[in-house]
Amino acid sequence: MKNIRDLLEKAPQNWGRWGESDEVGAVNFLGSAEVLRGISTIKEGNIYTLGQPINDPRGDLIGLTRRPPQHHMVSDRGMYAANKKDAVTGSGGVELSDDLIYMYTHSTTHVDSLGHAWYDGKLYNGYDAETTTGGLAKNSIHHVGNKGIVGRSVLLDVARYKGVEWVPEGDEITFEDLINTAAYQNVSLDKRDILLIRTGFYLNYLKNGSHEYFRNGLNEPGITFTNELAHWFYEQQIAVYGTDTLGSEQTHSSQTGTTQPLHPYLITRLGVSILETLWLEDIAAACADDGRYDFCLAISPLKLVGGTASPVNPIAIR
Amino acid sequence: MKNIRDLLEKAPQNWGRWGESDEVGAVNFLGSAEVLRGISTIKEGNIYTLGQPINDPRGDLIGLTRRPPQHHMVSDRGMYAANKKDAVTGSGGVELSDDLIYMYTHSTTHVDSLGHAWYDGKLYNGYDAETTTGGLAKNSIHHVGNKGIVGRSVLLDVARYKGVEWVPEGDEITFEDLINTAAYQNVSLDKRDILLIRTGFYLNYLKNGSHEYFRNGLNEPGITFTNELAHWFYEQQIAVYGTDTLGSEQTHSSQTGTTQPLHPYLITRLGVSILETLWLEDIAAACADDGRYDFCLAISPLKLVGGTASPVNPIAIR
Amino acid sequence: MKNIRDLLEKAPQNWGRWGESDEVGAVNFLGSAEVLRGISTIKEGNIYTLGQPINDPRGDLIGLTRRPPQHHMVSDRGMYAANKKDAVTGSGGVELSDDLIYMYTHSTTHVDSLGHAWYDGKLYNGYDAETTTGGLAKNSIHHVGNKGIVGRSVLLDVARYKGVEWVPEGDEITFEDLINTAAYQNVSLDKRDILLIRTGFYLNYLKNGSHEYFRNGLNEPGITFTNELAHWFYEQQIAVYGTDTLGSEQTHSSQTGTTQPLHPYLITRLGVSILETLWLEDIAAACADDGRYDFCLAISPLKLVGGTASPVNPIAIR
Amino acid sequence: MKNIRDLLEKAPQNWGRWGESDEVGAVNFLGSAEVLRGISTIKEGNIYTLGQPINDPRGDLIGLTRRPPQHHMVSDRGMYAANKKDAVTGSGGVELSDDLIYMYTHSTTHVDSLGHAWYDGKLYNGYDAETTTGGLAKNSIHHVGNKGIVGRSVLLDVARYKGVEWVPEGDEITFEDLINTAAYQNVSLDKRDILLIRTGFYLNYLKNGSHEYFRNGLNEPGITFTNELAHWFYEQQIAVYGTDTLGSEQTHSSQTGTTQPLHPYLITRLGVSILETLWLEDIAAACADDGRYDFCLAISPLKLVGGTASPVNPIAIR
Repeated sequence: MKNIRDLLEKAPQNWGRWGESDEVGAVNFLGSAEVLRGISTIKEGNIYTLGQPINDPRGDLIGLTRRPPQHHMVSDRGMYAANKKDAVTGSGGVELSDDLIYMYTHSTTHVDSLGHAWYDGKLYNGYDAETTTGGLAKNSIHHVGNKGIVGRSVLLDVARYKGVEWVPEGDEITFEDLINTAAYQNVSLDKRDILLIRTGFYLNYLKNGSHEYFRNGLNEPGITFTNELAHWFYEQQIAVYGTDTLGSEQTHSSQTGTTQPLHPYLITRLGVSILETLWLEDIAAACADDGRYDFCLAISPLKLVGGTASPVNPIAIR
Repeated sequence: MKNIRDLLEKAPQNWGRWGESDEVGAVNFLGSAEVLRGISTIKEGNIYTLGQPINDPRGDLIGLTRRPPQHHMVSDRGMYAANKKDAVTGSGGVELSDDLIYMYTHSTTHVDSLGHAWYDGKLYNGYDAETTTGGLAKNSIHHVGNKGIVGRSVLLDVARYKGVEWVPEGDEITFEDLINTAAYQNVSLDKRDILLIRTGFYLNYLKNGSHEYFRNGLNEPGITFTNELAHWFYEQQIAVYGTDTLGSEQTHSSQTGTTQPLHPYLITRLGVSILETLWLEDIAAACADDGRYDFCLAISPLKLVGGTASPVNPIAIR
Repeated sequence: MKNIRDLLEKAPQNWGRWGESDEVGAVNFLGSAEVLRGISTIKEGNIYTLGQPINDPRGDLIGLTRRPPQHHMVSDRGMYAANKKDAVTGSGGVELSDDLIYMYTHSTTHVDSLGHAWYDGKLYNGYDAETTTGGLAKNSIHHVGNKGIVGRSVLLDVARYKGVEWVPEGDEITFEDLINTAAYQNVSLDKRDILLIRTGFYLNYLKNGSHEYFRNGLNEPGITFTNELAHWFYEQQIAVYGTDTLGSEQTHSSQTGTTQPLHPYLITRLGVSILETLWLEDIAAACADDGRYDFCLAISPLKLVGGTASPVNPIAIR
Repeated sequence: MKNIRDLLEKAPQNWGRWGESDEVGAVNFLGSAEVLRGISTIKEGNIYTLGQPINDPRGDLIGLTRRPPQHHMVSDRGMYAANKKDAVTGSGGVELSDDLIYMYTHSTTHVDSLGHAWYDGKLYNGYDAETTTGGLAKNSIHHVGNKGIVGRSVLLDVARYKGVEWVPEGDEITFEDLINTAAYQNVSLDKRDILLIRTGFYLNYLKNGSHEYFRNGLNEPGITFTNELAHWFYEQQIAVYGTDTLGSEQTHSSQTGTTQPLHPYLITRLGVSILETLWLEDIAAACADDGRYDFCLAISPLKLVGGTASPVNPIAIR
C-alpha cells in the first residue's frame, strides 16, 4: 500500500489559486467563456437527463453506509376521504397533495461538496476539518449551488469502447483507456471540459440486484490515482467529473493499494466537483447514434447550507 | 364568491391534448425548437441561479402548513474525533462527511407536479385523485424530471415597473399590468415562453421576517384567474410559470373571491408546471442593468417517484 | 389453506362488550382488582426491564418491511467546539445535548394498537378500516397509553421447558405446550393474567445475525390459531400477550395454512394488546432461579395520537 | 449574576459515589427496598398516566429550540384502496397499518439523561463532554432504561397550596413553599422519594396557547438553585424529580441571576433524573380528592442507545 500523504504531497494542487476564501474550487474554471463553449455544442436541441429515480420502485442503489430515501405523503386524496384534511379554505373545494422526503444527500445522483472528504485534518483550500462538525461551515455545497454549472461535457463511453456490457467489477480504467476511448470516439478532450465516464456498471445493479452488486462489498470499476492521471486532471483544469458508479473511481486502487485515493486527491487538492451515480444510458445511446460525444451539461445543486452534497438531475443538451 | 366549477368548465383546457396517458402536460410544448429558441437568447454566458437557500441560517420561508427543512450530519470531523467513526478502511486515513435532509418538497424553491392540486376528484388529464393516495401514481414530478426543462424565459419585473420595493400584500397583478410591464421592458412575450413574474414580495420576508410576512396569514400579491388571463395562458402555450412568492398567485383572488383559483386552473386544466419561491433578485438586477429581459432557463426537477413537487435550483443563462 | 373468514366468524369475540365507543378492548379487563392482584406478586422488589435497545450497536432486529431506527444529534459537545452552538444564554456557560429519532413504531419492543390489523374492512369493535387512513382515528395506541397497564403476568418459558436454546424456526408451539410448560413451572394461569411466552428465538438473531434470522424470510416459531386456543384466550380474558419474536405467533400457521392468523383474531376480534420483540432473557433467568414464574408487569405506551403502535420498555417487578 | 462555577463547587455532589464507571447516578438510590416502599403506598389499585399526548391535535408544547413530533403513516387502509399496498401474503386478506415518528426526544414528557447537560466540559461522574459528540457514549439514557424506575413518589401541588390556577410566569417556588405545601398536604417527604411538583403552568398553554406561553420567551415558574435546596436534594437522596413545565425549574433564577442553574447542578453534580412536561392534572385531582399525596411511580425510559433523553409515560399507582 502506498502512502497517501506522499501521493498527495507530490501531486499538483489548487489551494489558494482562487484566494484564501474560495469555497468552490475548480468550478471557478467555468466562466462565461466556458458557458458559451458548452452552448456552442448544442445542435438539435435535444435534452437528456442524467439523474436516477429517487424512491425507485426497483429499489434505490445506495452505498453501504447509507439508507434509502423515504418518501412520506402529508396530504393526499385518501386523507381527505378519511376526513383527516379539509379542502383549502375559501377555495371552493380545491384539494392538494403534499409530501416530504427523508434522504441522504449522497443516496441518489449527486454532486459531492468540497467538504465531503479530507485527509490530515484539512479540507480543500486548507480549511480545518473541524469546520465540518454539525454542518459544513466551509465548502458547503450551497456555494456551488449559488454559482451553477454549465459547460462543454465529453462522455467517454469506456464500456462501449471495450465492447462490454459493463467494465468488470473491480477493474481499473487506465489513463490509456481514456485516451483510447476518446480517439475511438473521435472526440477532442479540451481544457475545462466536464468529464463523464461510462462504465455501464449501473446495469449490473439493474439486472442483478443489490446483493450481486455488493457481493464483495463495494468493489466498483473505474479510474484511479496515478501521477499521470493526477497531472492530467490538473492541467486539463477539469472542474467537474462523474460516472455511473457510486464512488466514481476504482474502489480498491490497483495502483496505490488503497481505497478510493481519488476522493482525497480530486476533492481536497484540486477542488473538483464529483458527480456520482449518474444515469448515462440515454445520453450514451444518443452519442453512439450519431457519433458525437460532446454536449452542453447544466448542473444545479440545491443550495443546501452546510450540505456535504446535493442530489441533482443534470441536463445534457445536444 | 364565484363558483370554481363554472370558471374551470368555461375556460380552455388541455386534457387529452397529448394523449390519454400523458403525465407532463404543457411541458410537452417545450420541444427541440423551444430549446434552441431558449439557447439563442444567450449572449454573454452569464449564469444566475434562482433557488433559495435550504436550511437557511436566516430561516427558510415556508408555507403555514409545512415545516422547515432539517439537516442532520451523519458523519463529520467531530464524530471522528469522538471515536464514533473510523476512517475509510484501507484508505490510509481519509475521512468523509455525510448528511441527510428531512424536507417538505414544497419547503423551498420548487416545481409543483401536476398531481399537486385537483378539483372535483380529477387531476390533470382526468386521472382520478385517488391515485395520489400514498404517493402519486399519476402526474408524479419524476415525469417532468425525466424530460427536463430548457427554453426561453421572460422576466416581468412588475415591482420595478410599478416603482415599488414589492407589490403590496394581497394586491392583484392584473393582466394589464403584465402587458404594460412587458411594454415598459420592451420585451416580446412569445408563444411557449417560460413566464417569470417578480413581485419583490420575498424581500418583505427578508427585511421583516416571517411574523410580518404572515401577519394576515398567507396573503400574497400576484396574478389571479380571469377569463382573459386564462385564455392568454392557454393561447400562449405557457408550459412553465413562476414567481418569488410561496403561492405564485394572489392568495385571495380579487376577481373570484376564492383562494388561489389559478392552482386548480393552471395545474389541473392546462397542465402548467408552477415554480414557487424563486430567488429573482440577481437575475432581475442583471436584466435591469442592460435592459434585456429574456434569457435561457434550465430547470431539472429531481426524479422523485410519487412526488408532489421537487426542490429545484433553476439556472438562468444570459 | 383455511378460510380466515370462517375461523373468525366461528370464534368468540368481544365487539360491543365495553360499549360501541370502546377503543382499548381487552385492556378493560385490567381494573383495580387486577392491578392489586399484580402488585400482590411482588416479593423482593427486584426490577427487570423487557425492552430491547433502540439504535443498538449490534443492529436492531426489525421486520422486513421496516427500516431501523435512526438517531440524530441536534446538539452535542462537538457542535459547541465547532462554533455551531452557543452555550445557553445567561447560564454562565452551561451546554446541552439534544437529539431526535426517526423510527418505525414497530421497529423495537412495542405494543400493537387495536388498529394495527383488520380483516374485511373492520377494525376491533367494528370501526371502519378507513379510519386508519392518514393516522388512526379509532383504536389509536394513545387510548391504551391513557389507561396504562399493570397486572399479574405469567411467563411461560417454552424454550426452557423443551430444553432447547430456542424453539426452532417455524415451529408451532401448541396449546398443550403451554399447559405443559405451566405445569412444569408449577405456575397457575389465572384469568386476566398478562401472558408472556419465551421462545428464545431472539437469541438466534443475537448469535447468528439478521441474515440467518431471515434466511427463509420471516419464519418465526410460536403459538397459532386453533379453536381451542381462541376459546382459551377468550375465556381467560387475556388482555395483553407477548413474546420475544417480531410477530408473536408462528409465522406460517401449521393449523390454518395461512400467515399470522392470530393477528386478525387477537387484535380485531378480542381486542388483545400484543407485545412484540420483548427482551425476556433477564426475567426468565430470574424466574428459573427461584422457580417462581409470576410477577407484576407495568407497561405504559406513549400517548401517540393516531399511532398504530408504541415502543415500550415494560417493567417486571418481582 | 452569580458565578456558576462557585455555586457548583461549593454544593455537595455525587461523583464517584457509585464507582468510576457509573452512568445512572442517583437512580442507584432506588434499590429493592425503595421499590417495596413505593409498592406499599398502593391502596386502591388505581392508575394515572403522566405522559402528554404526542402528535397532539391541540399542538404539542415544546421548547423553542425544538420542533414538534411528526407522525407518518407508512401503511393504512387508504394505501390499500389505492393499490399502493398488498394484503399480507398468504394471510387470506389481512391488512395492516404501520407508521413512524420523527421526534425530538425532549419534545414531549421525557426523562433527561445524565448526559443532557454539562458545565466546564464535564458530564456527571466526570466524563468528558466530548463523549456526547455524535451520540452519548457516556450517560446515555439507555442505562436508566436498563434499570427501570419504581419508587414512592410525593406530589407537591404548589398551585393548589397557593390557591392559584397556576404559579405565575417566571415566579420562584421557594424551598419554604415546598415545605409548606407538604405540611399543608400532610404528607411526609422521605429520603429517596421521587419528587413531583405541580405548578399548573401547563394549563396556561392549554388555555392560552403557545404564543401566550412564550410571550416573554421561555419564562417558567419553578424552584431554583439555593444552597439550602441543593443540600436538601443531596441529603434527601432524591433520584428522580419532575414537574409540569418544559424546564422543571424557574427559567430565570431569582436567586442566581442565571438561566436554569438547577440543570447543571441536579444533572451533572447529583446525577438526578429530571422529568419534564408531565401531565399532573389527573393525579393531582385524585390526590386532592382523598388528601393522600403519595403513590407508587413506575417510569421506564426507552433503551435509546446514545440518547440524551427518552419520551416516557410514567404510571402512578395509588
